[in-house]
Amino acid sequence: MWTHPPFSAAVEDGRVYARGASDNKGNIVSRLMAIDAFQKARGGVPCNIKWVIEGEEEIGSPHFAEFIAKYKGRLTVESAIWEFGGLDYDDRPLVTLGLKGMLYVEFKVQTALKDSHSARAGVVENPAWPLVRMLATIQDEAGRILIEGWYDDVKPFTAEELEVIRSMPLEEHSIRDELGIKSFLYGLTGFEFKKAFYGNPTANIAGIWSGHTGLGHKTVLPSVARAKMDFRLGPDQDPVKLAGKLKQHLARHGFGDVEVSLQAENPAARTPISSPIAKIAARAGKEVFHKEPVTLVTSAASGPMHYFTNILRMPTVAIGCNHPRSNTHAPDENQRIDVFVQGAKWIAKVIEDFAKSSE
Amino acid sequence: MWTHPPFSAAVEDGRVYARGASDNKGNIVSRLMAIDAFQKARGGVPCNIKWVIEGEEEIGSPHFAEFIAKYKGRLTVESAIWEFGGLDYDDRPLVTLGLKGMLYVEFKVQTALKDSHSARAGVVENPAWPLVRMLATIQDEAGRILIEGWYDDVKPFTAEELEVIRSMPLEEHSIRDELGIKSFLYGLTGFEFKKAFYGNPTANIAGIWSGHTGLGHKTVLPSVARAKMDFRLGPDQDPVKLAGKLKQHLARHGFGDVEVSLQAENPAARTPISSPIAKIAARAGKEVFHKEPVTLVTSAASGPMHYFTNILRMPTVAIGCNHPRSNTHAPDENQRIDVFVQGAKWIAKVIEDFAKSSE
Repeated sequence: MWTHPPFSAAVEDGRVYARGASDNKGNIVSRLMAIDAFQKARGGVPCNIKWVIEGEEEIGSPHFAEFIAKYKGRLTVESAIWEFGGLDYDDRPLVTLGLKGMLYVEFKVQTALKDSHSARAGVVENPAWPLVRMLATIQDEAGRILIEGWYDDVKPFTAEELEVIRSMPLEEHSIRDELGIKSFLYGLTGFEFKKAFYGNPTANIAGIWSGHTGLGHKTVLPSVARAKMDFRLGPDQDPVKLAGKLKQHLARHGFGDVEVSLQAENPAARTPISSPIAKIAARAGKEVFHKEPVTLVTSAASGPMHYFTNILRMPTVAIGCNHPRSNTHAPDENQRIDVFVQGAKWIAKVIEDFAKSSE
Repeated sequence: MWTHPPFSAAVEDGRVYARGASDNKGNIVSRLMAIDAFQKARGGVPCNIKWVIEGEEEIGSPHFAEFIAKYKGRLTVESAIWEFGGLDYDDRPLVTLGLKGMLYVEFKVQTALKDSHSARAGVVENPAWPLVRMLATIQDEAGRILIEGWYDDVKPFTAEELEVIRSMPLEEHSIRDELGIKSFLYGLTGFEFKKAFYGNPTANIAGIWSGHTGLGHKTVLPSVARAKMDFRLGPDQDPVKLAGKLKQHLARHGFGDVEVSLQAENPAARTPISSPIAKIAARAGKEVFHKEPVTLVTSAASGPMHYFTNILRMPTVAIGCNHPRSNTHAPDENQRIDVFVQGAKWIAKVIEDFAKSSE
C-alpha cells in the first residue's frame, strides 16, 4: 500500500515520504531547525527553552505520569508548545488550545473454557448475549450516555469559547464526502454540529468480536465475547472516577460479571483563549503563512496534554508543520517540505515574540 | 494439529485417521459393505433399496430442494436410513428420530464508506450501536425469543416423546466437564435440562464483529458491523415464515435499515417413535451390539432430513457406525474399525428385518 517504501524517505512533488515523516519527526526536526537558526544567526535563543520528547505516546504514555511527577520541579516554564499542529485544508495556520480526555476500556465475557456446537444453545450460555445487552444499556438511541452521573462534571463551553467555535471552519462537507454519508447523527449541522463535534462526551464502540467472523454459516456457540470502547471526555471529567461509575453501572444492571480492563485514561486539556501564548501563536502564524489563523478551542482527539495544562499548569498551544494530507498512521505518510520550512519559521517567530513579551 | 496427516488414512489403535473417515465416508462404505455381503452370501438384497448421496450437505445443500422436487416420484420408498448415526459414549447404539430445523441469518449495518478516527463519534453514526441494540431486542435474559409470533407454531413434545426423553441419557456431566462450567442456563438440570436441550427453539449469536478486534487501544469508529445468528427450530416451525417475522420485528423496532441475508433455512424433521423402522432399528442394534439401544426423539442439531420426512413423507432413522470420539469436522478425525464392521452388520440386520416385516 506504500507507493514509496516506508523507510526510503523518498522525495517527490515537494514531499518526503516515510513512516514518521509527519508524526512526529517532522515537528521535532522543524523545531530543532528553529533553534539552530537562532544559534547561528544570534549566537543563542532569546529565552530559556526546555524540551520534553516522549517516545510512548502511541501506546498511551504508560510511564509519563511517573516522569512528570519525578521532574515536575524542573519542567515548569511559562508556556508550552505541543507536539503536533500545522495547517488546515486551506493552508491556514491552526492554533489548537485543547484535547478531549479519554477513557478506553475492554470488556470481556467468558462463559466456558471452549466453544461449543450451537446445538447446545438451549442450555449453555452464549457470552455474546450479555455483552450486547450490557452495551445496549450504555448509550440510548439519541446518543445520551446512560451511565449514572456521567455528565455530572461536564463543563459547558464559555461564552468566549462559543464565539470562537462559531467562527471555526465547518468540516461538515469534507467529512460527508469522505465517508459517503448524507447527514450526521441526529441531523446535526452548522453551529450545533460544531458544538457536538468539539464538545460532546462520546461513547464509541471501537471493536466488538465473538464467535465465527469469517465467511459461511458456521454454527458455533462462542465461549468468549469482547468489546472495546473509547469514551471522549470534556474538561473536569475525571476518567478514573468515570471508570468507577461505569463499573457501578454494570453491577447495578446485572452485569457485574463482565470483566472490565482499563486501557487508557487521559483527562482533557484546555488552554484559555486569552492566554498570551495563544495570541502570540495566532499572530505569528498569520505573519509566516499570510493567511488568517484558525483558533480551535479544542481538538476532538485526545492525548497526554493534560500533564502540561492541568498538572504543570502551563498554557499550551498545538502548532507546527503538519498538514491534513500527511497520512499519519497510514501508508504514504509524508511531510510537505514547504510547510516543514515555514513551520520552523512559525516556531522561531513564536519563540522570539514570546521572549519579547516577557521582557 | 493432525497427529496423522489428514489424507494418510493411517491406521493406529484400531482406528483409521483421515478427513472424512467418519463423516461421511465411514457410513457410506459401511453400508456398501452390508449390500456387498447380501450379494455375495445370498445373490441379492432382500428388498428394494434406493441410494441418495448428496455432496453439498456441509454448505447447506443448496441444490437439494431442486433435486428432490425433480425426482420425487422415483425417490419414494417405505422408510429411510439417514446419513449419520452410531454409538454413544457408553457404546450403546443410538436410534435418532429427528433433527431440529434451522434458520441462519447474517446481519449487516453499514453507516459510512470507510472507518473514521473515533474523534468523530459525536457526529458520525457508529454501526455497532444499532447492531447491539437490535440484537438486544431479539432475546431476553430468560432466553425467551422476543420476535412477535416466534412460538406460534411450536409443537410441544407428545406424552410418548416425553416418556422417551425421560429415559434418554443425561449428558449434563460430560458437557459441564468439557466446558468447565458449574451450571447450565437458568439452572436447568435433569428432565428440564433434557426437555430444553432437545425441545427449545434457540436464538444463538454465532458471530459478531466490528472495528478493531486485535490487541491495543485503537480509537476507530467503524463503518460496518456484522453478526451471524442461528435459530434452531422445532417441528412445524417454518423457517421461511420466521425469517419474515424476524424482518417485521426489525422494522417494528426501528431497525428496518439493518440488512438481513438468509444463509440457511431447514425445517425440523421428526419420525414417530411408533414407526416400524424405529422399532426395527432399535431391536437390530441391541442384537448386534449386545447393549440396550438409546432412542433419541430428536438430535439438537440440524440437517436436511426434512426432505425425507416432510416432503417424501418417509419415516427416517439415523443409525450407523459413528462414535462420539470421531472428531468429525476437527483434526484427527477417525473411524473405529470395530464399529465400522458392526455398523455394517447393524445396517444389514435392519434391511433383513425390514424386508421380513414387509412380506
